[in-house]
Amino acid sequence: MALRAGHHSQVAMNGLKEKVLTLDTMNPCVRRVEYAVRGPIVLRALELEQELRQGVKKPFTEVIRANIGDAQAMGQKPITFLRQVLALCVHPDLLNSPDFPEDAKRKAERILQACGGHSLGAYSVSSGIQLIREDVARYIERRDRGIPSDPNNIYLSTGASDAIVTVLKLLVAGEGPTRTGVLIPIPQYPLYSAALAELNAVQVDYYLDEERAWALDVAELRRALCQARGYCCPRALCIINPGNPTGQVQARECIEAVIRFAFEERLFLMADEVYQDNVYAEGSQFHSFKKVLAEMGPPYATQQELASFHSVSKGYMGECGFRGGYVEVVNMDPAVQQQMQKLMSVRLCPPVPGQVLLSMVVSPPAPSDPSFAQFQAERQVVLAELAAKAKLTEQVFNEAPGIRCNPVQGAMYSFPRVQLPPRAVQRAQELGLAPDMFFCMRLLEETGICVVPGSGFGQREGTYHFRMTILPPMEKLRPLLEKLSQFHAKFTREYS
Amino acid sequence: MALRAGHHSQVAMNGLKEKVLTLDTMNPCVRRVEYAVRGPIVLRALELEQELRQGVKKPFTEVIRANIGDAQAMGQKPITFLRQVLALCVHPDLLNSPDFPEDAKRKAERILQACGGHSLGAYSVSSGIQLIREDVARYIERRDRGIPSDPNNIYLSTGASDAIVTVLKLLVAGEGPTRTGVLIPIPQYPLYSAALAELNAVQVDYYLDEERAWALDVAELRRALCQARGYCCPRALCIINPGNPTGQVQARECIEAVIRFAFEERLFLMADEVYQDNVYAEGSQFHSFKKVLAEMGPPYATQQELASFHSVSKGYMGECGFRGGYVEVVNMDPAVQQQMQKLMSVRLCPPVPGQVLLSMVVSPPAPSDPSFAQFQAERQVVLAELAAKAKLTEQVFNEAPGIRCNPVQGAMYSFPRVQLPPRAVQRAQELGLAPDMFFCMRLLEETGICVVPGSGFGQREGTYHFRMTILPPMEKLRPLLEKLSQFHAKFTREYS
Ligand SMILES: Cc1ncc(COP(=O)(O)O)c(C=O)c1O
Ligand SMILES: Cc1ncc(COP(=O)(O)O)c(C=O)c1O
Repeated sequence: MALRAGHHSQVAMNGLKEKVLTLDTMNPCVRRVEYAVRGPIVLRALELEQELRQGVKKPFTEVIRANIGDAQAMGQKPITFLRQVLALCVHPDLLNSPDFPEDAKRKAERILQACGGHSLGAYSVSSGIQLIREDVARYIERRDRGIPSDPNNIYLSTGASDAIVTVLKLLVAGEGPTRTGVLIPIPQYPLYSAALAELNAVQVDYYLDEERAWALDVAELRRALCQARGYCCPRALCIINPGNPTGQVQARECIEAVIRFAFEERLFLMADEVYQDNVYAEGSQFHSFKKVLAEMGPPYATQQELASFHSVSKGYMGECGFRGGYVEVVNMDPAVQQQMQKLMSVRLCPPVPGQVLLSMVVSPPAPSDPSFAQFQAERQVVLAELAAKAKLTEQVFNEAPGIRCNPVQGAMYSFPRVQLPPRAVQRAQELGLAPDMFFCMRLLEETGICVVPGSGFGQREGTYHFRMTILPPMEKLRPLLEKLSQFHAKFTREYS
Repeated sequence: MALRAGHHSQVAMNGLKEKVLTLDTMNPCVRRVEYAVRGPIVLRALELEQELRQGVKKPFTEVIRANIGDAQAMGQKPITFLRQVLALCVHPDLLNSPDFPEDAKRKAERILQACGGHSLGAYSVSSGIQLIREDVARYIERRDRGIPSDPNNIYLSTGASDAIVTVLKLLVAGEGPTRTGVLIPIPQYPLYSAALAELNAVQVDYYLDEERAWALDVAELRRALCQARGYCCPRALCIINPGNPTGQVQARECIEAVIRFAFEERLFLMADEVYQDNVYAEGSQFHSFKKVLAEMGPPYATQQELASFHSVSKGYMGECGFRGGYVEVVNMDPAVQQQMQKLMSVRLCPPVPGQVLLSMVVSPPAPSDPSFAQFQAERQVVLAELAAKAKLTEQVFNEAPGIRCNPVQGAMYSFPRVQLPPRAVQRAQELGLAPDMFFCMRLLEETGICVVPGSGFGQREGTYHFRMTILPPMEKLRPLLEKLSQFHAKFTREYS
């Protein structure tokens, strides 16, 4: 309907007024935001899918999206019990149906009782339905072997993303050398860099140690902190455990050391623990920051500020589309906590269906419940498959010359390092592309495999990686890994 | 589990380190945010409910929340068809059930086909499911009598709130006298003031004319704009139509005048049209800004930038808890639109169940569909009741001395003006409260009626109002209105 002005020159030629909102006049912080997980690679993947549908000939028959941690998009089936309870809540007439188990009905009735007007269609209180906050607190206590959790310190959110951005938002202040700095791992999940850019805070990089399976080293934290103190005011430290994109699971001693460091250096801790149910490697175990903190006793347990994040998007359930999550805050200044509550209330409330799913995740069927056996079986199948796929990924990649992949101890990704021949690097530079972006684009065009270049997550200068999820179904994963390895070999030959 | 430091002095005494994040060190923009709709009144209402449950004696037996536009919380039943389709999507096993109508099943299958992995559990693309964006575009074309709408200009969102904040975010730039100013109506829906405070933009107030049923007057827009140009750079103009909290529905000529004004003054238009289905008064009709803009022809139609917002929270469906909404942008610079898309992609996607409900709202059953009759009947009952309640509210309030209420032409609120005796105003000032906050608090304590003081929305200096929804069920509404009027009379006697 509307005529559009593309360029300044065109604007002038057509005699149109210039737009009010242009690249030049818009929010410069938003312009600086980058987000690789849904960047140009993914846009191109969408186009290719469309071309395939239109019958355009390609060297592949389908695009395989190994770019995003979205289990159900890759064919994983929802857990029956979760969907049964949610369907009952959405359409309570079903409570009379004989096709739903009794425990699902009991759960649904309990949740509906706690909803305004007994309906999912009412806004909840901004921090989330009280009953579900209590369920979350009890879950955390079980997870952390009895360390107490207070429902009043739990805030439900629109996915973990929302809670992470909210906490970052609280932390941002200052100008010039007093501007808030936030330490984030490199490689990182790019929500962090994007949110910091948008909030005009300073991103302070600390590098994970690829040679030691992406371990977090306190000496490196200290280096990053000291350097940053020269130009900003570092006030928070983010940890992703298990790691995205790196897949490592932190050892307990490491967590203790990080907590000691944060305490000494006066850093607010943010623990992104959305993959807490995704631990596969033998010998690896998830330790929550909250539990380790509590067990370290005073002064850490009583003073160190911490926010820990969780989500319904990952784990065995993979319910990404519902956008459920929560943050638990520990030792937060009560006055600040009130401010956080106020901030959340402006957006009214997190989506209620996501809250309902969260309630299921934190209080699943008990052994005596009719749904227990099926629930447990479905859960186990998913987690066992993920473990097998993690193993397979590491193994196949490490058989390929020029590809080196750390063990995928947890989460849903491999982040292999690839050698790229100097001529390929040069060609990429001529095209104005990061070398691994060039590699991934070529991979997509020639094989239909969609992965994200390491440059989207950050990596040590001169190293190249890509992130690939372990989520494709087993029967597709092996050929996929092999195809990818072969493509790398071909690419290497082509440019050497 | 954790010891908490309340005050600086206490911190010192206990030998604790000071918190990293305190009122003094936190984001000052967040501190400045105010949000009355869920402010102290609502917190007190929550406490009172708890006290009632614990058996504490009160002069009332229940708290009536007339503070928030949440129809289902006040007992409105969900529209059956919407919930049937959503239940089918959540739990596709139900597609085999004989208890669901064929058209609901067809809709559900169509939506599932468009979801990643054919499941609501997959993230959608960030701008929302393409099929649903197309449904929205067709809805807009029908609504606007054939004015074309491009699905690529439609972005689904987490309620309208999310989309509104996103567009504001794009607009914010500059420092000091070049800082972005945004014109908002007074009284306003406080999402606007809160978001502008958080984004550190300048809120520029223009006053609606209470004497002319809250009409919007271009002379007043011009006054506000000229004054603001002295200290900021006004770049956007927000309109809420039908109005919240004021309930007016704008005449077509008024919209034309506003568009002409925005065009001449180079202001980006934001039209909050979430109440587009809530028009009750005879002679009132909803005109979308998009339609009026298009019908005005060039240069307006071809150049004036506009964002229009809609939601599943209001209308006849009132599905607040699902957080579905959208924005349509018109004449936006394509490069800026790309930036907006990028920004949205950082948060991954709007909740898919809200998208599904939106799809139902914009493509309801057709006359030939088996669900049509029931759908239509349910819809009509809700809208007819709202119309009757709007009328009743105006009537009862205007019978009370000292209360004056403009006609509730649309939306879901009355915003009556109350006379408060000077001694009450004085008493409030002694207590450090806005006079109408004092009135509303006393009202709550003595009657259990929860309404929001006018000061939370803005009002002309020296005038006092409160906002009350028209949502309580008919049989409760009349006694409620009378109780409120009687309380006002008593309050007036007490302080005169
Ligand atoms: C480390 C990490 N944190 C947070 C999120 C956000 O998840 P959501 O907002 O869906 O809960 C993700 C999603 O991939 C993630 O990988
Ligand atoms: C004028 C106006 N705009 C936007 C909203 C936000 O609605 P939601 O985010 O639920 O779509 C509301 C809610 O009350 C409103 O009254």
